[in-house]
Amino acid sequence: MSLRTVLQLVVHGEATSRADIARRTGLARSTVSQQVELLIGSGLVEEVVTSASVRGRPPRLLRVRAAAGLLVAVDVDVPATRVAVADLAGNTLAVGVVDRPVDDGPEAVLAGVVDQVRRSVAGLDAPLLQVVVGLPGPVDFVHGYAVRPPIMPGWDGHPVGERLRAALGVPVLVDNDVNLMAVGEADVAGVDPPLLFVRIGAGIGSGLVTGPFQVHRGADGAAGDIGHVRTSARSEVLCRCGKTGCLEATASLRAIAADLGIPEVRGADREHGQRTLAARVAAGDPVAVHRIRQAAAEIGDVVAGLVHFFNPRTLVLGGALSSLRDEVLAGVRASVYENALPLATRKLVITTSQLDGEAVLRGAVALAVQEVFSPDGLSGLLARGGGRVSPGS
Amino acid sequence: MSLRTVLQLVVHGEATSRADIARRTGLARSTVSQQVELLIGSGLVEEVVTSASVRGRPPRLLRVRAAAGLLVAVDVDVPATRVAVADLAGNTLAVGVVDRPVDDGPEAVLAGVVDQVRRSVAGLDAPLLQVVVGLPGPVDFVHGYAVRPPIMPGWDGHPVGERLRAALGVPVLVDNDVNLMAVGEADVAGVDPPLLFVRIGAGIGSGLVTGPFQVHRGADGAAGDIGHVRTSARSEVLCRCGKTGCLEATASLRAIAADLGIPEVRGADREHGQRTLAARVAAGDPVAVHRIRQAAAEIGDVVAGLVHFFNPRTLVLGGALSSLRDEVLAGVRASVYENALPLATRKLVITTSQLDGEAVLRGAVALAVQEVFSPDGLSGLLARGGGRVSPGS
Repeated sequence: MSLRTVLQLVVHGEATSRADIARRTGLARSTVSQQVELLIGSGLVEEVVTSASVRGRPPRLLRVRAAAGLLVAVDVDVPATRVAVADLAGNTLAVGVVDRPVDDGPEAVLAGVVDQVRRSVAGLDAPLLQVVVGLPGPVDFVHGYAVRPPIMPGWDGHPVGERLRAALGVPVLVDNDVNLMAVGEADVAGVDPPLLFVRIGAGIGSGLVTGPFQVHRGADGAAGDIGHVRTSARSEVLCRCGKTGCLEATASLRAIAADLGIPEVRGADREHGQRTLAARVAAGDPVAVHRIRQAAAEIGDVVAGLVHFFNPRTLVLGGALSSLRDEVLAGVRASVYENALPLATRKLVITTSQLDGEAVLRGAVALAVQEVFSPDGLSGLLARGGGRVSPGS
Repeated sequence: MSLRTVLQLVVHGEATSRADIARRTGLARSTVSQQVELLIGSGLVEEVVTSASVRGRPPRLLRVRAAAGLLVAVDVDVPATRVAVADLAGNTLAVGVVDRPVDDGPEAVLAGVVDQVRRSVAGLDAPLLQVVVGLPGPVDFVHGYAVRPPIMPGWDGHPVGERLRAALGVPVLVDNDVNLMAVGEADVAGVDPPLLFVRIGAGIGSGLVTGPFQVHRGADGAAGDIGHVRTSARSEVLCRCGKTGCLEATASLRAIAADLGIPEVRGADREHGQRTLAARVAAGDPVAVHRIRQAAAEIGDVVAGLVHFFNPRTLVLGGALSSLRDEVLAGVRASVYENALPLATRKLVITTSQLDGEAVLRGAVALAVQEVFSPDGLSGLLARGGGRVSPGS
């Protein structure tokens, strides 16, 4: 148990030397050294000599051995699926594409994922330790499958996690893709939680990070599903859900493009409409700019209520192409500061995503790192001999 | 460290015998027995002989020794403050009243609280271990004070936690009262999280429980502050915050009573208006019933959006007198099922509070139990010799 404690201190950067560990745990120096040697022996931790000190013994820095294991992140998206391989420090080593739309169904897409993962890790000299999958719909995180996802025909209840675990022989986590974007933003950009991440794209969704690496997923994995919250503008536009007044029906990029007569392109080039819209905004087309600002005000109106309810430290807007995002950011800021009480907004930071299209994969890798070094993950790792696990296991 | 693990298993009811502990921890029976003896020696745990078994050795049940320590819960409310003393199992032993309105300011109220606590625990033969205070406003939970509370003149930033800690010599937690009501509901009624607790009274507020004993307090302690969310009815009634369209301005019991010409009584009998309103509803006054249902529909309209966003398993309505609450429940249910998507509501339980006026004190006691037996709390307890701590320390 104290071996695990020592490892966690190193993983979370709370201790970078044997002296740190002794101070943090109250363990004797000899005990600490014994445990550090064990961890180095297991291959999970390494001790490197730094040259920072001018005199005396050069300090030795304890850190996770990045090469001790591999992590895989899978971003199942509507046009295609991407698969990233990362090392144990979260550095991306390679990204591959499974060229199958989500409409092909889970059997075909997951078969492609398994192939791609096997090819990606084949040449690498480290064991695969964890897979994290993002799906574009509500996810039962505990059981690892999508629950009534509106844009994933055939995926409802399909055991994604179980299927990949059986094929690849490693632990698999399945999460909603916007949740992973929020995790990526919190981890990579280092924004302070509580974080509310709002994705504005063909639809509108959000992800809630309540504390360090704590995602609020809700009772059915549906938390953050704000596309069907009714705006106070009470529009009569019919939403695809069959109701009127939903945020998504008037403020999503799909709705805006339709209003402006920009044709929707389905399939692989689904960003065509967004690019056309962004070009018109960049060219200063007043009708397009006005429509974007109107949508941003509606989003801000709903978000102002959520700011009262959730009291985030940081609100991050993501999803849209960046040229559109500046207009959206201005409109949402104006509306939130207009509609929310000063107490809830005086320290609130409202900003745009730093990760763009990489957010899902980066968040999935971050979650994989956390999972591998969680108490349960660590117990498994140490039991199996850490980084000395053979790639075939 | 494993002593703490063993104690936590017993506290959380996950192990009720030495055999349970051995099974859960993988420790040898002899090690477990040694640790159990240590805990019994510390006075925190006791082993009682039950008569449930017909033959063989009668089973011995391990449990927390309720008499090993005292907990104090403080409910600072507008007309007066109540102070409850409980044992370590969370059973209330006594409740006293500090007859000072919150308007008297923190110095006077807290002096009364200190007096009341000292009198309450004086005759009891166990050490006071933890105090938990509920305040009617946003609270900085980490530092233990109210932040710009609208109905607590003079309390903004006053160091409530520090003050009581210095006077009583024990750890003190300070929280928002609606958060404590939510904790009480989750703990006492055993409702499954995620839980959204909505209090409907003179104002409207809410508390969010994300998981077992995990309260989401937000960046400024203001999470759940839904009174100033704008309703989609877009009323032009001016709210006390200076804006229009706020939920509280049209759907709070104060707003309803004012509409119906029921005079507001300030001070101690602030429930007078609620009782008059409840009497009219109970007598079947159609105007009063209509007005309540209209308010409930507005509350439900806002809550439907929060249901999408937070995806709670349970929605509990509390705060109002129970006769009013039935009308409110029916109205909120109708509105939530009308306005939220079926996916978010198919498993949602919508119910009324089981604790009524006791919710804050019960929640504060529950939080105190959790805190005492948290890893940090336990370390302190064991270091001080558990229940053998002297009352004067």
